[in-house]
Amino acid sequence: MTMAPLATELPFVLRPENVARYENGEVVIADRRRFPFERVFVRCRDIAGVGLAIKTMVTQGAGPWVAAAYALVMVARQARDLPADEMMERLNFARSQLIATRPTNTTMNRVLASEIEIAERALEAGEEVEESLLAWVQDARERYYERSARIATVAAELVGAGEGVLTMCFAELPFILAMSQAQRSGKNITVYVPETRPYLQGAHLTAPCLQEMGVPVVVVTDAMPAYLMSQGKVQKYFTAADLVTMDGHVVNKVGTLENAIVARYHSVPYFALTAGPDPSREGKDSIVIEERDPAELRSCAGQPTTLENIGTYYPAFDITPPELVSGLVTEHGLLSPFGLKQHFPVKK
Amino acid sequence: MTMAPLATELPFVLRPENVARYENGEVVIADRRRFPFERVFVRCRDIAGVGLAIKTMVTQGAGPWVAAAYALVMVARQARDLPADEMMERLNFARSQLIATRPTNTTMNRVLASEIEIAERALEAGEEVEESLLAWVQDARERYYERSARIATVAAELVGAGEGVLTMCFAELPFILAMSQAQRSGKNITVYVPETRPYLQGAHLTAPCLQEMGVPVVVVTDAMPAYLMSQGKVQKYFTAADLVTMDGHVVNKVGTLENAIVARYHSVPYFALTAGPDPSREGKDSIVIEERDPAELRSCAGQPTTLENIGTYYPAFDITPPELVSGLVTEHGLLSPFGLKQHFPVKK
Repeated sequence: MTMAPLATELPFVLRPENVARYENGEVVIADRRRFPFERVFVRCRDIAGVGLAIKTMVTQGAGPWVAAAYALVMVARQARDLPADEMMERLNFARSQLIATRPTNTTMNRVLASEIEIAERALEAGEEVEESLLAWVQDARERYYERSARIATVAAELVGAGEGVLTMCFAELPFILAMSQAQRSGKNITVYVPETRPYLQGAHLTAPCLQEMGVPVVVVTDAMPAYLMSQGKVQKYFTAADLVTMDGHVVNKVGTLENAIVARYHSVPYFALTAGPDPSREGKDSIVIEERDPAELRSCAGQPTTLENIGTYYPAFDITPPELVSGLVTEHGLLSPFGLKQHFPVKK
Repeated sequence: MTMAPLATELPFVLRPENVARYENGEVVIADRRRFPFERVFVRCRDIAGVGLAIKTMVTQGAGPWVAAAYALVMVARQARDLPADEMMERLNFARSQLIATRPTNTTMNRVLASEIEIAERALEAGEEVEESLLAWVQDARERYYERSARIATVAAELVGAGEGVLTMCFAELPFILAMSQAQRSGKNITVYVPETRPYLQGAHLTAPCLQEMGVPVVVVTDAMPAYLMSQGKVQKYFTAADLVTMDGHVVNKVGTLENAIVARYHSVPYFALTAGPDPSREGKDSIVIEERDPAELRSCAGQPTTLENIGTYYPAFDITPPELVSGLVTEHGLLSPFGLKQHFPVKK
């Protein structure tokens, strides 16, 4: 049994209380957009507040499911004096509002579905719904940290001494732990981090977290990975996965596919860190790619980058086919993207 | 004989007087960094001023050779009362200072070498050096506009009706003219323009120029071309070339290689627009890739993007091998990157 890492072993952004927390009946979410320049939190008193925070990227990566999970706890508290059916109506409405904010990553959807079940059972058993949900969310978070540590151990073993590692966006806890573990074991690695426009999660989150953990890091633009590989600087490519389909397609921050193709061209293996495929998503036709407001592409760090009347297009994710994926790094070990059904049978 | 396009047929940035001009013994350079938000010019009274402007990206693309060419005219004027050998010493010193500012693109080097010859001949013939150089530069610019129009005609024919075209950075006059010509002929194209971090030449220059010429344009981030291609939105990929070696390697803004690899993966042909290979550069070993100040990667549009102590790496160009190049678009037509020596024999 892998233990969850202690908070002091984590970079600031990834400590549980600095992702999101439930405090006095409110959901408090760390504003990742303003990190690393400021360490500020957004306090949400209702579902609209949490939904807006998720939609506008106050939090991202593993943050949305945590914030949304606490949001249902908050709804249960606010509805505690209502009849059971009205409380369930409110919880279900809140769930539908929340999952609409980011349609591609389906973790939030599954977490909220579990909470709906927990709430129903608590009501049947005559238990306090807020308390039952809160206990479940805290437990789910604990399991997330433990699972991340196990994934990290598998990933760290894939990195050789002196190697260069490419990543994209912010591959969250499992990646940061993996690189930290590889470095602590004396492998002397270098992690190349594309800045990840337009939200700059690479520059804002990944690079500062790795640096905090003592991992040598080099930020580059999103257009440079091919040149790095052509110069022999990259031996492994790792990303997170917002969604993995049962047939092995990896959905992740737009740019992941671009790097996977150039990695294949340079014979660099690509590994995606994941809790596992989504059993409700058979293949790529089941994927909904979120298209964000095109206006978000006309500025950087709050400054305009082009004229207001210039057309832009902002798909937030892309889809990497299984033939470009060398392996899925899971808590069960490294799995081929082909044949996932053997390891994750779909429950009928 | 193709005529040079009239200034009124060009977007603002590409009109000759808005690239750089020689005015009252000074070199006046358009500040492309501030376009399209401001239309301002940098006035240079000495070589250090011109060198700094080129180094700090006040101008780029075809701008540096024009600015540097006028800089030697300015030096000739300032040295007009000196003995011939001292004037030549000053011109040669200025040349060496200027070519050191941007080591990868060798056009500036070749233009300045021609000017040194012109100056020597003028001195031998007892002619005014400033006037001789100025006449030569004006003629070279005229020939550049004519050649660009011929290259554009070849490129425009490569684009089919209803096609999507990907580019990178700012592929200068030949590309803007080509897309404008394709669109005017009723092809109803869409040009996808990566913003091109860190200097955003795609967002600042390419997109506004295309829009000014009535060409439908969509700005994307540098990480999106693979996704665009996977969605069937791109049928052709065009860039300029800062340098083409005799064995067909294309050196261009970093990111060009990344897109060329994903283009090949999606069976999208890649064409580089060029005046021709550099006869002094045999193969890729002869290429010097400019590495710019890593600090330039820690900000965007003047705002910090990451912490000051985070490591960064900024190669300004990359090298696309001939096997990824479907053709070089030259004034002599579309040429294979293999066998360039047949068309451009090296003078012994």
